[in-house]
Amino acid sequence: MERYDVAIIGTGPAGLEAAITAKVRNKSVLLLGGKGSSDKVSKAHTIQNYLGLPDIAGEDMAKTFLDHATKMGVEITEDKVNAIYSMGQYFAIQCHNGDYEASTVIVAAGMTAMKPFPGEMENLGRGVSYCATCDAALYKGKTAIIVAYSAEDEPEAEFLAERAEKVYYLPQYEYAGSLGGNIEVTLDVKPESIEMKDGQAVLNAKDSSFTANGIFILREQIAPSQLVPGLEMDGNHIKVDRSMATNIKGLFAAGDITGAPYQYIKSAGEGNVAALSAVSYLNSVKNN
Amino acid sequence: MERYDVAIIGTGPAGLEAAITAKVRNKSVLLLGGKGSSDKVSKAHTIQNYLGLPDIAGEDMAKTFLDHATKMGVEITEDKVNAIYSMGQYFAIQCHNGDYEASTVIVAAGMTAMKPFPGEMENLGRGVSYCATCDAALYKGKTAIIVAYSAEDEPEAEFLAERAEKVYYLPQYEYAGSLGGNIEVTLDVKPESIEMKDGQAVLNAKDSSFTANGIFILREQIAPSQLVPGLEMDGNHIKVDRSMATNIKGLFAAGDITGAPYQYIKSAGEGNVAALSAVSYLNSVKNN
Repeated sequence: MERYDVAIIGTGPAGLEAAITAKVRNKSVLLLGGKGSSDKVSKAHTIQNYLGLPDIAGEDMAKTFLDHATKMGVEITEDKVNAIYSMGQYFAIQCHNGDYEASTVIVAAGMTAMKPFPGEMENLGRGVSYCATCDAALYKGKTAIIVAYSAEDEPEAEFLAERAEKVYYLPQYEYAGSLGGNIEVTLDVKPESIEMKDGQAVLNAKDSSFTANGIFILREQIAPSQLVPGLEMDGNHIKVDRSMATNIKGLFAAGDITGAPYQYIKSAGEGNVAALSAVSYLNSVKNN
Repeated sequence: MERYDVAIIGTGPAGLEAAITAKVRNKSVLLLGGKGSSDKVSKAHTIQNYLGLPDIAGEDMAKTFLDHATKMGVEITEDKVNAIYSMGQYFAIQCHNGDYEASTVIVAAGMTAMKPFPGEMENLGRGVSYCATCDAALYKGKTAIIVAYSAEDEPEAEFLAERAEKVYYLPQYEYAGSLGGNIEVTLDVKPESIEMKDGQAVLNAKDSSFTANGIFILREQIAPSQLVPGLEMDGNHIKVDRSMATNIKGLFAAGDITGAPYQYIKSAGEGNVAALSAVSYLNSVKNN
C-alpha cells in the first residue's frame, strides 16, 4: 500500500492550505474530503477580512481556493474517514471506501455541529457504529438502522442491505432517492435517544421507535475524539500547541477544529503551520 | 488625546490583517509603520502557498494587501515606535513624531534582523538611545553620534543638530543626502562595538572610533523586549498563547515576531486572531 507523507482530513481553508504547503515542500499528499470546499465557506455571504481577497462572496472564495489547490497539483480523494489509528511509525486511516496509510496526519475537518444523541457515545462499538460499509460483513442475516445525513449515504445503505436481512433507513435530509427491497425508508423521524435493550439497539423518536441488531449514524463528520482514539481534547476542540501538534506524535490539527475564532484566514494560517510542522516531523524521523 | 481602541505596530501581513479585522468589528484603529508594506514581502519572488493568491509575485502581493486595507478605510500612520508603556487602563505609545494612546496594542513588527552591537544593550539609556528627536532637548551644547539605517533618518539628524553642538552621522545605507553644518557625515564606517569611557560614549569601528556624549542607533526596528518594558520573550520572539496574548494584559502579538514559520499566511492568520482577541479584551474591560 502506498504510504503518503501527509494525509489531510478536510478540504476547507485549513486543509487546502496544508495541502499546497506540503506540495511546495515536495511531500506526497492524500487530501480526504468533499470537493466543492466546505458548505460553510460556499454558503457564507461576503467575507471582508481574508487579506488579499477583499469583499469576496463565499462561493467565489471556495472556487478560488480549489483552483489554487488544483493549480498546485493537489487532488481531492472523496471519501469519509471513519477512524485514524496511530501505528507507531505511521497512521492507518480507515475510510468508507478503503484504507490508507500515511506517515503524518493533519486533521482539518472543521466544526460541523455534531451533538451526539443521548446514549450514542455510551454504546459506540456496542450497537452503535459510524461506518456501514466497514461493518457490513458482521450483519449477515441481521437487522440494522441507518440514520443518514446526506444522499451520499444511500449507496452505503444498499451495500449494507446486500448482507443484512433488513435495513431501516431514516433520512435526516430532503430524501429524493429510490431505495427499496429490504430497505425500509421512513421519512421525518427525528431521533431523540439510543439505548440497548435485551441485546438489541433501540432508537427512540418522538412518536415511534426502531429496534435492530445495530444502529449506524452516518454524519458528515465524526467527533475528533472518536475519529482518533487517544486524542487529547480541550472541550469540543482538539488540543494543539503553537506548532499545531496534538498529543499524538505525527498527528497535527488545524482550522475550526482547534478552536475559535472560526475565521477563514485563521484556518488557512494554521493549515500552513500544521503542514510545515508535519514536514519537520518527517525530517526528524528520517534523520533518526 | 484621542484614545484608539487598537494600536497596531507593523504593516506586514499580520498588521494589515489585524487592522481590517478590527475595522470589520467597528473598532478605531491606529496602524503604525511604513507604507508600501514590508520590504521582505515586496522583495520576495513568487509566493506559491498563500491560499487564494496562486503564484503571486511579492510586489503584487504587497500591493494587493495594501489595496484591501485601503478599501476597508484603514490608514497607515508613518511613524517609528520608540517605546510602548502599559499604563494600566491603556497604553502610551511613544513615537518619533509624537505620542499616541490606545486601549489595546498588537505588535506585528516582523523580524528584521536586529543584532545589537557588543556594548549596546548594556548601555541603553546610559549613553545609547534609539530616538534622537525624543532626546534632543538633553543635547544642548553636547555632541552625539548617529548610526543611521535609512534616508528617513536624515531629518532626525537635522532636528538633533539644532540643539546639539556637533553630530557625527554614520550612514549604514547608500547615502545621497545633503546634511551639513554641524553634522559631520562619514561614509563606510561599520560599527563594531560600543563602550562608555570616562563618561563619554565611544563607538569603535574597524579603523576608526568616534567619541561623543551619546550614541543614537536608528534601526528600522527595535528589539521587542526594548520596545515594551516587561514583555516576556521566548528567545528572540514574543511569547504568546494560542489567542496571541502576551504576558501584558491588553497587549497582543502576531506574525514573524511570535516565531517561525515565517510565512505570509501564518502571519495573516495570527493578525486575525490577535485582532479578535483584542476586541474580546475591549469588551471584557467595558463590561467590568
